[in-house]
Amino acid sequence: MYVHTPTPPPPAIRSAFFISDGTAITAETLGKSLLSQFSDVEFDIQVIPYVDTIELAKQAVERINRAFETSKLRPLVFDTIVSDEIREIINSANAYNLDIYEGLINRIATEINHEPNPHAGMAHSHVDSDDYKARIDAVHFALDNDDGARTTHYDGADIILIGLSRSGKTPTSLYLALQYGIRAANYPLTEEDLDTSQLPAALKPYHNKLFGLTIDTERLVRIRQERRAGSRYASLAQCQEEQRAIQAIYSSQKIPNLNVSEMSVEEIATRILQITGLKRRIGV
Amino acid sequence: MYVHTPTPPPPAIRSAFFISDGTAITAETLGKSLLSQFSDVEFDIQVIPYVDTIELAKQAVERINRAFETSKLRPLVFDTIVSDEIREIINSANAYNLDIYEGLINRIATEINHEPNPHAGMAHSHVDSDDYKARIDAVHFALDNDDGARTTHYDGADIILIGLSRSGKTPTSLYLALQYGIRAANYPLTEEDLDTSQLPAALKPYHNKLFGLTIDTERLVRIRQERRAGSRYASLAQCQEEQRAIQAIYSSQKIPNLNVSEMSVEEIATRILQITGLKRRIGV
Repeated sequence: MYVHTPTPPPPAIRSAFFISDGTAITAETLGKSLLSQFSDVEFDIQVIPYVDTIELAKQAVERINRAFETSKLRPLVFDTIVSDEIREIINSANAYNLDIYEGLINRIATEINHEPNPHAGMAHSHVDSDDYKARIDAVHFALDNDDGARTTHYDGADIILIGLSRSGKTPTSLYLALQYGIRAANYPLTEEDLDTSQLPAALKPYHNKLFGLTIDTERLVRIRQERRAGSRYASLAQCQEEQRAIQAIYSSQKIPNLNVSEMSVEEIATRILQITGLKRRIGV
Repeated sequence: MYVHTPTPPPPAIRSAFFISDGTAITAETLGKSLLSQFSDVEFDIQVIPYVDTIELAKQAVERINRAFETSKLRPLVFDTIVSDEIREIINSANAYNLDIYEGLINRIATEINHEPNPHAGMAHSHVDSDDYKARIDAVHFALDNDDGARTTHYDGADIILIGLSRSGKTPTSLYLALQYGIRAANYPLTEEDLDTSQLPAALKPYHNKLFGLTIDTERLVRIRQERRAGSRYASLAQCQEEQRAIQAIYSSQKIPNLNVSEMSVEEIATRILQITGLKRRIGV
């Protein structure tokens, strides 16, 4: 007798909601960081920003309840909603609400013996503030001084990132600008520069601003292969030779440097601040 | 008789520490968001990333205790340290530790009935991951298509930001790229474009990708004055005329647009996602 074995249904995936009356960046940052501690569990992540009316709160509750109906698993809710009225509506959903924000604000208020002044949204710098100007200036500095495009403005640089082609200099420069208002130029050391075993003339006067990024050879090969498959530029021999040469420069010139192979842009940027002691221009 | 009244000492400022075994971005984001709810209280903010050894934890405790000695006010500590051993050392400081992370992780573990897999550091995408590649591609797309530099690659754009000169297009494009992997071009509508009351020819085929940024006239004047004081470009009459013309285009061409005058780059970017329904390429 043939027994039909039904395919088991796919395992239900629990939803996690990051909800805020503002951008939801805080709820999302904290929520993702917490969920990353359960790396072998899959979550269906949903971000709902700008829940700042009763109507929008009710719509969010409907979304949460639908997620519960679908998976039969109580969604996790991370919210940073300031209004009591709106938060209570969110709390009425069929979900496990960690209710982080309200509890923490009350604990801080008790500790510092001071009432909060509740207002929605983070203290980000808007487009007419000094912080915003510092940010924009830094972004334009990074753009103008990307990839060795211009080397005549290094007097104004807070830092000059150097490294081989495709070692992460450009996104790091832009992140430093956007996040910290730091003016970062970047300069790729090319084969020509590396042949001389010397710093390029344009960089020599700015020795104390230099910071090197390095990356494992096999990763460098892989990244370059994606860009120009089969080229000499992407060959193992070429990458090995460039690596040897740049390490010799870092070492003989005593240039601080960092292997970024396992790092995100966020990590590269915060490590650079830590290693160099460079001060943020905004944000603290 | 002359009575000497001593100047009262300046009020003591309480310190707030954001401490992590990783970048401290989560601790800082949450901590700043919470403290922003006490906007009339001043805090001395100190970020201590990469506290991943007992020795570094002890050094952090010394810093916290010094802050307490100076102000006689218990510092607030926001930490996201995963290791029990290191967290206990931090907890020994003379401070009020909100101990957010550990408590929340345990609550999540109970709710989802699953043990955490503790590991330091956020789940950011490192330089050899798909997310990283999407990020880098988006950053390079934004750089190559900044400020109308090139209009032949708009087929590959997820969105094309338009607006007057100095309305926040460039930093928004870069933020969309770095944070969400979205490929954003940007194109400034200049006097020449505005005179015709029509969309520039380069933009016409991409009507459905256009998104307009606007800014209050008085702010635009102020921002342009800082760039070119006394110029016609920065005059009230010129700015008013450009505003009138661009609003006419947005309205006649039915282009979604956003007044970003009171917004941070973070807020502009998240609002654009919300209004357009554009999907992130990374991060969710």
